[in-house]
Amino acid sequence: MALIVVGSVAYDGVETPHGKVDRMLGGAATYIALAAAYFTPVKIVAVVGGDFAQEDIHLLASRSIDLTGMEHVPEGKTFFWAGVYSADMNDRTTLRTDLNVFAGFNPKLPESYRGEPHLFLGNIQPDLQRGVRQQMTGVQLTGGDTMNYWINDFRPALLETLRQWDFLLINDSEARLLSGEQNLRRAAARILEMGPHTLVVKRGEYGAILFRRTAGEPRHFIAPGYLLQQVFDPTGAGDSFAGGFIGYLAGRGVAPAGGHLDFAELRRAVIYGSVMGSFCCEQFGVDRFRTLTREEIDARYREFQNCTEF
Amino acid sequence: MALIVVGSVAYDGVETPHGKVDRMLGGAATYIALAAAYFTPVKIVAVVGGDFAQEDIHLLASRSIDLTGMEHVPEGKTFFWAGVYSADMNDRTTLRTDLNVFAGFNPKLPESYRGEPHLFLGNIQPDLQRGVRQQMTGVQLTGGDTMNYWINDFRPALLETLRQWDFLLINDSEARLLSGEQNLRRAAARILEMGPHTLVVKRGEYGAILFRRTAGEPRHFIAPGYLLQQVFDPTGAGDSFAGGFIGYLAGRGVAPAGGHLDFAELRRAVIYGSVMGSFCCEQFGVDRFRTLTREEIDARYREFQNCTEF
Repeated sequence: MALIVVGSVAYDGVETPHGKVDRMLGGAATYIALAAAYFTPVKIVAVVGGDFAQEDIHLLASRSIDLTGMEHVPEGKTFFWAGVYSADMNDRTTLRTDLNVFAGFNPKLPESYRGEPHLFLGNIQPDLQRGVRQQMTGVQLTGGDTMNYWINDFRPALLETLRQWDFLLINDSEARLLSGEQNLRRAAARILEMGPHTLVVKRGEYGAILFRRTAGEPRHFIAPGYLLQQVFDPTGAGDSFAGGFIGYLAGRGVAPAGGHLDFAELRRAVIYGSVMGSFCCEQFGVDRFRTLTREEIDARYREFQNCTEF
Repeated sequence: MALIVVGSVAYDGVETPHGKVDRMLGGAATYIALAAAYFTPVKIVAVVGGDFAQEDIHLLASRSIDLTGMEHVPEGKTFFWAGVYSADMNDRTTLRTDLNVFAGFNPKLPESYRGEPHLFLGNIQPDLQRGVRQQMTGVQLTGGDTMNYWINDFRPALLETLRQWDFLLINDSEARLLSGEQNLRRAAARILEMGPHTLVVKRGEYGAILFRRTAGEPRHFIAPGYLLQQVFDPTGAGDSFAGGFIGYLAGRGVAPAGGHLDFAELRRAVIYGSVMGSFCCEQFGVDRFRTLTREEIDARYREFQNCTEF
């Protein structure tokens, strides 16, 4: 039983107030997979170029992440993104986006992937997301991410895609844009009518809110953000949150089984998401995941409990 | 055993996306007192002008708020403030500030106030705050609020005042300004060296964080903001938070007794603060407090538990 993760594997150039790295492993699928792999076996679907480094393959493989579905295009280059963060790191400016081989990404699932029960669709074109799900033969839990660009310019395709999802995981501004509602409770109620029975709204340093469709008004659970002593580099924090969230659910064998996902398990998944997002910010890029242990993750989960219960 | 509340009693003109009121009861001490009065007897120290309406006196008196210390200046006018909120209500622009009789506010405590154990000093000039505390004969728990203006332009006076306080209750930007630290954990550690053993950092819609000095690193407790269906008017929400916080502690007879305030009680006080701040936003000005019951407050406290425990 494994989790399929679809999305970008990339190189990033990042500058924060704490330093600058010209080129490091990045991409949504990379962060999601590295975070989720602490909880469940992961199989990646992605595309990389001839420049993709052997050491980066080793890192992913060292976490038993299945790379059968990671297509190599030797004549092309890997997706490259560069950006610089503001002094308080709440804003970032994109300096460069070279889609490279990612521009032609058309995910094809290896035979060995198709029977898996859990699917996370990273932020790619909604029709491609839908196409991936159609290749799965017994998927039990489907969800993913999207972004402003797809919400604005590919709305019909996105809505068709969302109809088949169990959960959607987006940030607060995306939730407002998708729903047309400023108030998050109203926004959530709208989105939960679009298909997903579960919505996670990420709020950056302020944590996340889980909404769950019920017969009446949606239920919700509010998780604060972990209070770091220092945010070193926020790149990938949202994707690490996603990896912790879906990784925990997949690892627990949680499946909607007729539409029911246990609310208590979903709450725990949100906290594991916050935990993984917080660790991600402690070092540049994926560096924190090179040394992070499951014991540290569980210790921080308990710290979350200590800092929030009353 | 009563709580002494010192600060402004005012009239406000407020415009939000939901409507406009030209003149309504306002002022920090008003909101603090109205919120605290659900938990403990309150005695106000303030100044108003000859225009202060009998119906507003009735409202405060109907909550058994002692107005002996509310000075009337018949020839003067009550402090007036007017402002307009942005579309998302996260920003507001001041249109008018007429200090009127508040400009000469020099709080003098009636004899009947001086022996009380609990003191909340609203946002006024730090020397005046210190002067009030000196008039108290057996105060056990002292704390209050301040703002950017005093932090920037009256820093030495403010630091001298803070040395005598048990707790400080400010918002996140004020905590950053006072400490010179961007990161809230570091900011809190600095502030807890200035005198108060307890710091509450308000974060608006995102809730609040409680920090507590210990022998090592400060302990903290994170409370999310209540997720309202609609924010009608945020005016006074921070002061209502303060009223719920100190009102709960005073009502429980909590005192530092050699510097020790029970952390569990402080957590509950922060949640009651969030509860009172959330109710305040549901109607214009103090209107929600005209009908709010203690049963509704306790129901929302339980709702907070349901929405946050995992």
